[in-house]
Amino acid sequence: MITLDQAKVMIDVARKTGREMGLKPLSVVVLDAGGHLLAFEREDGASPGRFEIARGKAYGAVMLGMPGSAQMARAEGQAYFMAAVNGAFGGKVVPVPGGVLVMQGDAVVGAVGVTGDTSENDAAAAVAGIEAAGFAAKA
Amino acid sequence: MITLDQAKVMIDVARKTGREMGLKPLSVVVLDAGGHLLAFEREDGASPGRFEIARGKAYGAVMLGMPGSAQMARAEGQAYFMAAVNGAFGGKVVPVPGGVLVMQGDAVVGAVGVTGDTSENDAAAAVAGIEAAGFAAKA
Amino acid sequence: MITLDQAKVMIDVARKTGREMGLKPLSVVVLDAGGHLLAFEREDGASPGRFEIARGKAYGAVMLGMPGSAQMARAEGQAYFMAAVNGAFGGKVVPVPGGVLVMQGDAVVGAVGVTGDTSENDAAAAVAGIEAAGFAAKA
Amino acid sequence: MITLDQAKVMIDVARKTGREMGLKPLSVVVLDAGGHLLAFEREDGASPGRFEIARGKAYGAVMLGMPGSAQMARAEGQAYFMAAVNGAFGGKVVPVPGGVLVMQGDAVVGAVGVTGDTSENDAAAAVAGIEAAGFAAKA
Repeated sequence: MITLDQAKVMIDVARKTGREMGLKPLSVVVLDAGGHLLAFEREDGASPGRFEIARGKAYGAVMLGMPGSAQMARAEGQAYFMAAVNGAFGGKVVPVPGGVLVMQGDAVVGAVGVTGDTSENDAAAAVAGIEAAGFAAKA
Repeated sequence: MITLDQAKVMIDVARKTGREMGLKPLSVVVLDAGGHLLAFEREDGASPGRFEIARGKAYGAVMLGMPGSAQMARAEGQAYFMAAVNGAFGGKVVPVPGGVLVMQGDAVVGAVGVTGDTSENDAAAAVAGIEAAGFAAKA
Repeated sequence: MITLDQAKVMIDVARKTGREMGLKPLSVVVLDAGGHLLAFEREDGASPGRFEIARGKAYGAVMLGMPGSAQMARAEGQAYFMAAVNGAFGGKVVPVPGGVLVMQGDAVVGAVGVTGDTSENDAAAAVAGIEAAGFAAKA
Repeated sequence: MITLDQAKVMIDVARKTGREMGLKPLSVVVLDAGGHLLAFEREDGASPGRFEIARGKAYGAVMLGMPGSAQMARAEGQAYFMAAVNGAFGGKVVPVPGGVLVMQGDAVVGAVGVTGDTSENDAAAAVAGIEAAGFAAKA
């Protein structure tokens, strides 16, 4: 289980990592093991729709048990399948890196979604946040 | 305009107010002037669907330019109208106190939505947060 | 059929009527006989969600062939029916005055939706606009 | 911020540009910084679904902070990503030229969406409208 304090560490460190890496303004969401929102922050200067993108990355990860990189691989091999999955979840699945699973041993206890820079940089920021909160990350 | 730092003050003080008042675990959202998510936190022990309720309170306030108390008055007099408004906004309007407008002079610059305790207590926590960040609140 | 020039007359005169009556900022939509958007204007100072309300009033009128006043009467007698109708049309039906049919003889050629003031004043502005464009109004 | 008068200048000049360039009937929408409708006009002879296309172009631009041309480039390189983004925004993102950002310095204050002719011609009409109203355009 992820506490709110832990979720806030994830967001703080993901954002700090973004500044250290010189990334564009980031938006960071933390979802629980049921895909439900624990915490979110959108940095100044980010476009207004960033919540939907950040959540989409994290939501797909939790609901499918697959991090964004694995979803992207599937999308590149079978685009229509991931399009259908998006529809099956009411449009809430965005299958690219930056959706990172939060692991406790073998169990998925939630996911972090980051958007704002390249998908790879978004994922790096998410991983930094998750590990700073004492969890293992699966990106 | 509400900065992320200001939004975080709103959430911190709303939550602190909740603890001081002895309220149940709160969930607090801050939306911008277009109804888009700036920040959110859900306290430990709150039920998983609290984001949708908090956002629904704040979203209706921004989109209609009416705080939750005014929406509730309208709903009590004309329930079918507020039900239809909920539909017109894709289900995202929850017309009860706890959706509080953030005012800068005469302009609505966003809204705070709080859920977890009674609607009146939720609204009190939201007002405290908004005022602590240097804005006027319309509850 | 309503031309764009006629739709713009409807909007201009509805807005001018609102100013003459001292109403709050109005939002005015004109839909064609299929319920599709021809023209819309939202006056400065109106809340951001006014399009959805204005369209909901006009859309229900066209799709049901009933002006807002008749829909409201039905809603007051049988609220669950109008709630179900709202759902059946994807949330786009707002059953109150201010949704006014545009008539050419016995044929419905479109509808005007106005929101911003009381439902009755909204409807009066809509009627003025429709008649100024040379059509009969059914409010 | 875009006033209604400025939005109407954008639409008038976009339409006039279309006639001067000999384009097909145009539909033109102006959205505010939150993606909400300020004004819309559909020229006579345009098909009934043009509002949804015009809004989709402008909505994606505002919500992602990317004009239609940049969205198209992303869609051509990674089609499944833009399809997922469309889903994340409830189907309201149409990623092609003709969705043009309205800039005030570095801030996105809204977007214009034009549809009816080729995407490139649609974008040219939008740019002309935006500039005539005294703003910078990012197409």
